[in-house]
Amino acid sequence: MFLLSNVLATFSVGRVVASGHPNFKSGDLVWGMSGCEEYTLITDPESLFKINHPELPLSYYTGVLGMPGLTAYAGFFDVSKPKKGDYVFVSSASGAVGQLVGQLAKITDCYVVGSAGSDEKVNLLKTKFGFDDAFNYKKEEDLNAALKRCFPRGIDIYFENVGGAMLAAVLPNMRMNGRIAVCGMISQYNLEQPNGAPNLFCLVAKRIRMEGFMVLDYFGTYNKFEEEIAGYLKEGKITVVEDVAEGIENVSAALIGLFSGRNIGKQLVTIARE
Amino acid sequence: MFLLSNVLATFSVGRVVASGHPNFKSGDLVWGMSGCEEYTLITDPESLFKINHPELPLSYYTGVLGMPGLTAYAGFFDVSKPKKGDYVFVSSASGAVGQLVGQLAKITDCYVVGSAGSDEKVNLLKTKFGFDDAFNYKKEEDLNAALKRCFPRGIDIYFENVGGAMLAAVLPNMRMNGRIAVCGMISQYNLEQPNGAPNLFCLVAKRIRMEGFMVLDYFGTYNKFEEEIAGYLKEGKITVVEDVAEGIENVSAALIGLFSGRNIGKQLVTIARE
Repeated sequence: MFLLSNVLATFSVGRVVASGHPNFKSGDLVWGMSGCEEYTLITDPESLFKINHPELPLSYYTGVLGMPGLTAYAGFFDVSKPKKGDYVFVSSASGAVGQLVGQLAKITDCYVVGSAGSDEKVNLLKTKFGFDDAFNYKKEEDLNAALKRCFPRGIDIYFENVGGAMLAAVLPNMRMNGRIAVCGMISQYNLEQPNGAPNLFCLVAKRIRMEGFMVLDYFGTYNKFEEEIAGYLKEGKITVVEDVAEGIENVSAALIGLFSGRNIGKQLVTIARE
Repeated sequence: MFLLSNVLATFSVGRVVASGHPNFKSGDLVWGMSGCEEYTLITDPESLFKINHPELPLSYYTGVLGMPGLTAYAGFFDVSKPKKGDYVFVSSASGAVGQLVGQLAKITDCYVVGSAGSDEKVNLLKTKFGFDDAFNYKKEEDLNAALKRCFPRGIDIYFENVGGAMLAAVLPNMRMNGRIAVCGMISQYNLEQPNGAPNLFCLVAKRIRMEGFMVLDYFGTYNKFEEEIAGYLKEGKITVVEDVAEGIENVSAALIGLFSGRNIGKQLVTIARE
């Protein structure tokens, strides 16, 4: 029995122990939503995906080949419509989604800069994930100045994970016909008074498109995505960094660590190995 | 000599008195940007358009057949991509752009509601322009409640002219895959501290696309637009309301009136009649 559980969304990888559904049989490797537990009863197998590349680390199916990976792929390619040479900015760039967006941007021959919340993460972006540049937003006195330094010619694509002050700094730095793919706005979720971007009128003069998306809408494209990313992984074009905690008793600590940004890369918890 | 001048943008209609440019000859009727004056020297005739339907009131070429008309047409059809049955909300709806957006929405078999700043304008929207409903935003204590009343099933398309509190009220009332065409944010332009929409994260869960645009990008499509709108005008499918001040000495008063919302419909100043 093999089961890895993604703490926050309780996405996991596992092996089917018994099945009454014609599409799944005992022994199949699958990934999808589950309880954060050793065995899960799945009553809605529509939300389970078969694992077609078990030769890759199975943990990848909670990250680069799972929900965060599909999120990055859909948001970057379908929503932000990149072109070779585009200037791309990714916030929360060392997270499971951001690290893949940056690498997809490099595969597309874009120039990509990421922001993250520690020097260790910034270093990872530059040395492991191939970002052209990166900065620690907690150490920048003026986010607008940081963006101007990294993007003297402006930003074509902003992959938005945080909202708030970062969005407000990005808007005046966008280029004509820029695109903002809104994946999340994590800085806003726990605020009693979300602060929004006061300079939204930048959208008009720069003809900016800002568009929200959810990965659920892209489940139908999963197989195409899986094949493409599995190919990049085998060719060494995509690097993965995971932060693995051991044992179900460490789920809470791993979860709490996410909110203070303690994790480096995708946070996983190993429940059991094969 | 005939010249009508659109006060705010100094767009006007006139007759060519003399021309050294091969595309224009003395006597041609044209519209485009000009000084707010009786005679204008045009050094860049790329920004002039020939008038192909002089059988219609020439003043229409400062409004419904001019820049505001093309703005409404481009923003509604190209940016907000309407479908039959869509729920459409237009702010600043009695203005030159808004009144045409509403009528184009009705021609497209949408349900359309407008907001304006006086009961007289609201009445005009419902009785002259065929809006399904309208409200006076200055009289509503709670914009969110007003929108819920007008759109119990939510909004598919918001044609954004004002920004600020109206945008903040619209966002949670948008439907899945909604579109916000950002034409302007007039409530924000004269604020020292623009206030932005604090609930932008609505873009994610509802997969909303918010897109700024400028009419300049659509100048190449002018002839197609002119033919289509001239046809609607001749069939009586589009109604025009203009607010005409007489004489160049009244330009300042007409201009100042715009900022207090005194005008009803497109504000024009007649400089000279033929």
